[in-house]
Amino acid sequence: MTRQTADLTARSEPVVPEDLEDLALGEDYALKPEYVDMVIDAADRGDGERLKELIDALHPADVADLMGFLTADYREELIPHIAPDDLAEILSELDTNLREEILDSLPAASLAKALEDLDTDDAVDLVEDLEDDKRAEVMAAMPEVERAAIESSLAYEEESAGRLMQREVLAAPQFWTVGDALDHIRADPGALPELFFDLYVVDPGFKPVGALPISQLLRAGREVTLWSLMEPVTEIAVDMDQEEVAYIFDKYHLISAPVIDPGGRLVGQITVDDIVGVIQEEAQEDILALAGVSDAGRDANVGEIVRSRLPWLVLNLATEAIAVSAIAIFQDQITKLVALAVLMPIVSSLGGNAGTQTLAVAVRALSNRELTSANAMRIIFREMWVGLANGLSLALVMGACVLGFYHNWRLAIVIALALVVNIFTAAVGGILAPLALERMGRDPAVSSSIFVTFLTDFMGFIAVLTLAALILR
Amino acid sequence: MTRQTADLTARSEPVVPEDLEDLALGEDYALKPEYVDMVIDAADRGDGERLKELIDALHPADVADLMGFLTADYREELIPHIAPDDLAEILSELDTNLREEILDSLPAASLAKALEDLDTDDAVDLVEDLEDDKRAEVMAAMPEVERAAIESSLAYEEESAGRLMQREVLAAPQFWTVGDALDHIRADPGALPELFFDLYVVDPGFKPVGALPISQLLRAGREVTLWSLMEPVTEIAVDMDQEEVAYIFDKYHLISAPVIDPGGRLVGQITVDDIVGVIQEEAQEDILALAGVSDAGRDANVGEIVRSRLPWLVLNLATEAIAVSAIAIFQDQITKLVALAVLMPIVSSLGGNAGTQTLAVAVRALSNRELTSANAMRIIFREMWVGLANGLSLALVMGACVLGFYHNWRLAIVIALALVVNIFTAAVGGILAPLALERMGRDPAVSSSIFVTFLTDFMGFIAVLTLAALILR
Repeated sequence: MTRQTADLTARSEPVVPEDLEDLALGEDYALKPEYVDMVIDAADRGDGERLKELIDALHPADVADLMGFLTADYREELIPHIAPDDLAEILSELDTNLREEILDSLPAASLAKALEDLDTDDAVDLVEDLEDDKRAEVMAAMPEVERAAIESSLAYEEESAGRLMQREVLAAPQFWTVGDALDHIRADPGALPELFFDLYVVDPGFKPVGALPISQLLRAGREVTLWSLMEPVTEIAVDMDQEEVAYIFDKYHLISAPVIDPGGRLVGQITVDDIVGVIQEEAQEDILALAGVSDAGRDANVGEIVRSRLPWLVLNLATEAIAVSAIAIFQDQITKLVALAVLMPIVSSLGGNAGTQTLAVAVRALSNRELTSANAMRIIFREMWVGLANGLSLALVMGACVLGFYHNWRLAIVIALALVVNIFTAAVGGILAPLALERMGRDPAVSSSIFVTFLTDFMGFIAVLTLAALILR
Repeated sequence: MTRQTADLTARSEPVVPEDLEDLALGEDYALKPEYVDMVIDAADRGDGERLKELIDALHPADVADLMGFLTADYREELIPHIAPDDLAEILSELDTNLREEILDSLPAASLAKALEDLDTDDAVDLVEDLEDDKRAEVMAAMPEVERAAIESSLAYEEESAGRLMQREVLAAPQFWTVGDALDHIRADPGALPELFFDLYVVDPGFKPVGALPISQLLRAGREVTLWSLMEPVTEIAVDMDQEEVAYIFDKYHLISAPVIDPGGRLVGQITVDDIVGVIQEEAQEDILALAGVSDAGRDANVGEIVRSRLPWLVLNLATEAIAVSAIAIFQDQITKLVALAVLMPIVSSLGGNAGTQTLAVAVRALSNRELTSANAMRIIFREMWVGLANGLSLALVMGACVLGFYHNWRLAIVIALALVVNIFTAAVGGILAPLALERMGRDPAVSSSIFVTFLTDFMGFIAVLTLAALILR
């Protein structure tokens, strides 16, 4: 009987293995909820074979996504069913929180084995996330060559070109012909990177003097020398920050670039697929920093998220307490005319909004190197004019509304003037704060929005209440 | 004497042409202000030869940057000195505002000539920006083949894969050997794209059945069939939105991907260098949308910038007017206890901040497909718990402060409770607003921050004043 039930279950699921891939992803290439449910079902039934089938049908990146949609218990059940060859790649694709969780649960020996399959850049990425003890254990279990490569990459700073690069490169001396290069590639395919896009031409001191896309290599005759074909090369210094590397790749549309040590010698290459990740990361950092929140990671728990947000809120509470002290000082004005308490928040809010606009544009322009010392003065003046124009426009609208509602033209003038002052202040603060932070070598996105919000709230309150004291009397 | 002075000036500029490249760019690969000054000097002196020298030393992307640092008059003076071969590439690199300005000033014939040098995707990019009349004129001046290619690309929707792709691809039937493919590439280099990274293997109906990185092609023996080497291929539908294309490239680490028509036939390819630009663009759009500002472009004038920001500020004014109406209704409370007018803005501001945090995280998670229908419920509940935890923590701090300052425990309770309510509301609004917009097929970043700010301001005022009415009496 039991046997038959099992059969029925099998038949009631009309899925043949070949269809799994189509079932897994929606038209937008995101994992379908139904597929996640199928995995959960299989796990609940303890059907290991089915689980394996469901995982095998997915690209490692999709298995990583799947992990994010499951609870920790299900993840643990899944891991033994992952093919050992795929494990390393899936680990590379995982979000940090999950990766740490899974790395902790894996024995050092299988980790060491998985790492051998990866290019140095990806392997280093994983090793970084290991706890110190575990890291030592895993490294000890690795073959000498791989260990040395990983150790020397780890010696470079985090988020530097040295960490991003892979050591495997295709390089050739300038006197070689295309034929020499092709024979070299075919003779020793094991020494080359898994994927390569450019051949770097080097001088006898192993310094890059040019580069050649391999599609050019394929097109050219065998007798042509590399020297005559090669194009100027954009080199990346090994200690360059990854944000800068991304900027250079984007600006010059690079597919790969050679990395050089301080002596100018070729030590590795960075490929554009790693840069795509960096660009996403840096843009993410800007957005989150502007919103006053640290990145807790996709699969953070409530405690981790609270820790990533509460400090910013507390800071906001502190700055806001200072801002409202302006109200406390002038509170007699409010007792005299409570309409001020009603209108004041509008002035502050509009200022905050205008400041945020300027700030977002400035932070992006700084990231893209569109705002530099060569044009900073021009952009500052432009923002001031914009602030003045927006302030005057809004003051007209708002002044008219106040006059309409309260039939008090003095009040209308107070609010209109306060708006002009505050929106102008917002423009100045919104452009100067990120510029100043950048000049000090700090990240212009971090903390500038807290400052601008404080500035516009404070100025909003002060402007309304002092003008009220002067004009309304 | 005059003669000698001139000589001294010449000597005081110790620049030999070979050094210009080093002089141009700083260590961060951004154009140096001094170089811009040198260009301005040369233009002021009317020294055309020097101008040409200064421009020729730069990569087209850097010439485009240079344009952005100059005023319109200087730009006009520069253009005649650009080598005709470089013109098209420089135009491709220009920011939209400048590009339109310069396209307008160029004669149709030289434009048509410049366009011929570009791959279809870049040529289309330029043609798009032409005014209708000019476009017709330029197209008429182009050779038949190029015109047809551009016209059929223009038939696809803006920001779709069809616009991003180039029509030139390297494709081969599955029964070919590596040797066949290599011979084909060498036999007809003109029909191939300028750069290529993958060979697409197609069936007799020209449908892609696999792909092969050309580095694999180089490594393999000549007799091996493509069929046995090829890997599964990720296809891009020609009408797919560019944001989705970027997501797929990032997720699967693609360098190039074949584009297929609705019948599944190969019609072109997209390469990762175009995707890097798209990713920057989409991240930019998210940041600006969250800050409530449309993209006016790097070189917009004051009027264009005002137009890109004022509508959002007016919308903010309108929603804020509704929010403060809550104060107007309860203003008796304020007359009774003016401390409420002091403390209320803190509650609103903290709510706004908490809402913005949730919103920014949600918008990014939606962009990266980390937040989908498969995990939406879990994330919503997680945000609610975070809101509750943050609300309670801040309420404790704030309640204690109020008690300390005002020695009024009823007031402390009013403010603490209002904070919990508002921060919880912020969390719910911050996650539900972008999810709802996404569900409706709208951009979750646009307008959600205006809504969340309104929600938290309104709720902040209402919560403080109704609780005050209930508890303080």
